[in-house]
Amino acid sequence: MRTQVAIIGAGPAGLLLGQLLSRAGIDNIIVEQRSPEYVLGRIRAGILESVTVDALERARVAARLHDEGLPHAGIELSFNGQRHRIDLQALTGRTVTVYGQTEVTRDLMAARQAEGTTTIYEAADVSLHGFDGTRPLVRYRKDGATHEIECDYIAGCDGFHGVSRQSVPATSTQLFERVYPFGWLGILSDTPPVADELIYASHERGFALCSMRSKARSRYYVQVPSTERVEDWSDERFWDELRSRLDPHAAESLVTGPSIEKSIAPLRSFVCEPMRFGRLFLAGDAAHIVPPTGAKGLNLAASDVLYLADALAARYRQDDVRELDSYSEKCLRRIWKAERFSWWMTSLLHRFPDADAFSSRIQQAELDFLVGSEAACKALAENYVGLPY
Amino acid sequence: MRTQVAIIGAGPAGLLLGQLLSRAGIDNIIVEQRSPEYVLGRIRAGILESVTVDALERARVAARLHDEGLPHAGIELSFNGQRHRIDLQALTGRTVTVYGQTEVTRDLMAARQAEGTTTIYEAADVSLHGFDGTRPLVRYRKDGATHEIECDYIAGCDGFHGVSRQSVPATSTQLFERVYPFGWLGILSDTPPVADELIYASHERGFALCSMRSKARSRYYVQVPSTERVEDWSDERFWDELRSRLDPHAAESLVTGPSIEKSIAPLRSFVCEPMRFGRLFLAGDAAHIVPPTGAKGLNLAASDVLYLADALAARYRQDDVRELDSYSEKCLRRIWKAERFSWWMTSLLHRFPDADAFSSRIQQAELDFLVGSEAACKALAENYVGLPY
Repeated sequence: MRTQVAIIGAGPAGLLLGQLLSRAGIDNIIVEQRSPEYVLGRIRAGILESVTVDALERARVAARLHDEGLPHAGIELSFNGQRHRIDLQALTGRTVTVYGQTEVTRDLMAARQAEGTTTIYEAADVSLHGFDGTRPLVRYRKDGATHEIECDYIAGCDGFHGVSRQSVPATSTQLFERVYPFGWLGILSDTPPVADELIYASHERGFALCSMRSKARSRYYVQVPSTERVEDWSDERFWDELRSRLDPHAAESLVTGPSIEKSIAPLRSFVCEPMRFGRLFLAGDAAHIVPPTGAKGLNLAASDVLYLADALAARYRQDDVRELDSYSEKCLRRIWKAERFSWWMTSLLHRFPDADAFSSRIQQAELDFLVGSEAACKALAENYVGLPY
Repeated sequence: MRTQVAIIGAGPAGLLLGQLLSRAGIDNIIVEQRSPEYVLGRIRAGILESVTVDALERARVAARLHDEGLPHAGIELSFNGQRHRIDLQALTGRTVTVYGQTEVTRDLMAARQAEGTTTIYEAADVSLHGFDGTRPLVRYRKDGATHEIECDYIAGCDGFHGVSRQSVPATSTQLFERVYPFGWLGILSDTPPVADELIYASHERGFALCSMRSKARSRYYVQVPSTERVEDWSDERFWDELRSRLDPHAAESLVTGPSIEKSIAPLRSFVCEPMRFGRLFLAGDAAHIVPPTGAKGLNLAASDVLYLADALAARYRQDDVRELDSYSEKCLRRIWKAERFSWWMTSLLHRFPDADAFSSRIQQAELDFLVGSEAACKALAENYVGLPY
C-alpha cells in the first residue's frame, strides 16, 4: 500500500488528524493495534477548550458536540469547607465544553467510516522504518500476513506506550518526567452531577474532583496513594470518601448510585523533545503527558494535530516545508506552558505525602491569595480555557 | 523603672512601634543589646511598600523619605538575554519607594532622640519574665548593675536571633522553615545604578539583582552557593560575575567601582506561630523571615507594627482588648501570603542545585507565561507593591 501520511494510532489525536488531512485532500491511512471497541472503552477526559471545539468543527464532526456538549462558564474551587467560583467567561470571554473523550472518538470514527477512509484496526507488531530518509515505511502483521505502507510522512499518535516514540533512538531525544506519589481513583455513575459546574476540592484527606459527562452521568475522582488497589474500593467506600472531602452543601446534595466504571489512574508529567525526527512527527500523548488536573491532555493533543495538519497542508499545497520544520518548537512552547499549569494545579490542590509543614502553609496561602485576587483568578482562567493557539 | 510597653530591639520595627505608641500617648521604653552605631551599620532592604510609607508618615518621620526616596513605577525581569518590564503603577495604581532601611532607622532614631523618649542601648543579658501573667518584667545588665522594667506589655522586635521568641517555651510554638541552598553575595558601591528601575535577572549561572539606594549608590547581588566565602570574591570577580548574568544592554552599560560593603546573606523562609504569648507580642523578624526576593522583610515588619500599635491604642483608649486578641491571626494571614510570594519569586528566579530537567523547563515556561499574560503580571505586581493592609 501507499499513502501520503501514515498515522499510527486511532485515538482522538490520530482520528482528528486523519479527518483534517482528508479535508485538505491529503491521503492518509490509520494503523491501530487495538479493536474499535477497545479504543471506545477507554474512559478519559471530558473538558474541551474552544481551540479543540474549533478543531472538531474544522474536521466537521462537531454536530453532536454542539447538541449534547455542556458549555461551562466557570469552575469552583473548594477548600476549608467553602466553595469559590472562578468565572471563566467573565474573566476571559471564553467557556469550556463538557463532552466526553469517548464521544469525540465515536464521532470521529463515524465520520471516517462514512467517508470510507482506510483504518486498519488490530494491526500487530507495528514497526516504523526509514523516517530518517525520504521513504518512510510502516510494517505490521494482520490476518497472518505482513503488510507494508509506503508513505511520505508518519504521524505518531499512538500515546505514551505506543511504538512511535520508542522507534526513535534514545540518543536523539531528551525526556522530562515527574511522577507524582498518588493517583486518581475515578468512578463513572448514572447519577445527576452534584453541581452544575466542576468542583476542584482541596481537603486535608486529599484532592477530589466532581466532574460530569452529561446532566445524568457523573464522573468523580478522589486522590489516593499510588499503592492503592481498585479492588479495595467498594462503591460505598468511594462515596463516603468523596463526601468527606466536599463542602457541607455539596456533601449533603451528593446523589450516589452504582458505578459503571471504576479505575485508578497514575499522575505523571512527561515531555519528549523534540517532537519531530526526520519524517516522523509525534503528536499528543506520544510526546507528552500531563496530570489530569486542569484537563489539558486531550486539548494539547488537538492543538498538536492542528499545527501538524496545517504544516502538512502547506507542504502538499505550496511545497512549503517551513511549518513542518518549526512544528516541534511551536508545539513545545505551548505544551510547556500547559505542563506548567497542570503541574501547578496539581501541586496547589493535592496533598503530598512528603510535604513539610512549611509547604502545607504555602499551599493554603496560595489558595487564600488566589480566591482574593481577580488577577490571579484570571491567570488561572486563561490557562484553563486554553492559552492562545 | 515602669512603662506601659517595653519594646525589645531598636531596629526599624522597634523604633517604628515606639514612635507610633508615643504618637498615641502610650509610654514606652526600648531595650537594645547593641550600640546605635552597630544598628545603623546593618545594611538591609531598600524597597518600601506604600503601607510602609504610610506607617512612617503616621510616625511623622517621612520628611527625608519624601525628599530623597525614589518612587519606582516598575521592575524589570531579565531572562534569555531580554528584559521585560512589569509596570507596577499601570497594573495596580501604586508604586514602591526606594529608600534604604539604614535611612529609615536613622530617621526613626533622630525623631525618638528629639522627643527624649527612653532607649537603652548596649543592654546585656536581656531577659523577659512574667508575660504569661499580668505583670511582665524585662531585666538587663548595664554599667555593672542589673535593671528591671515593669510594664503592661512586651513587644518583641529583636529579630530572628533575638531573645524574645527564645523566651517562649518551645511547646507553645509551631515553627515553619525552609532553608535555601544558596545565598546572596551583595555589594554596595558609589556608582550610578545600571538602570532606572530594579532588574531581577534569571540566568543559567544563577540569579542576579540590580538594585540601588540612590541615583549615585548601587546595590547589586548575585546568587552564590551557601558554601561560598566572601573572602574569595574580589570586587573584580564580583563585577565579572554580575555582568555575565545580565542582558547585553545592561552588561554593556554597567558602571563598576570599589565596593563599600560586601557580604553574603543566607536565604531562609521562617514563621513562628502564634505571635502572641500572654502579654508578649512578636513583630517583624522575631516572628518571621522571608528570602529577600520580593523585598518583603521590612514591609512585613511595618505592617505587624501597625497592627500592634493600633491594638495597643484600642486597649489603652477604650480598654478594648479584642484587637490584641486577634493580633496574631490577623498578622499571620498577611504574613503567609508574603511568605508565599517571596518563596515563589525565589523559586522562579534562582537556579536550584538539585533541580531536575523537568523543573528547569517548568521555571522557563512560567517566565514565558508570566511576561505574556497581563493577569499574571498583575498578580505579581499586587504582591510586589504590597497586599491590602
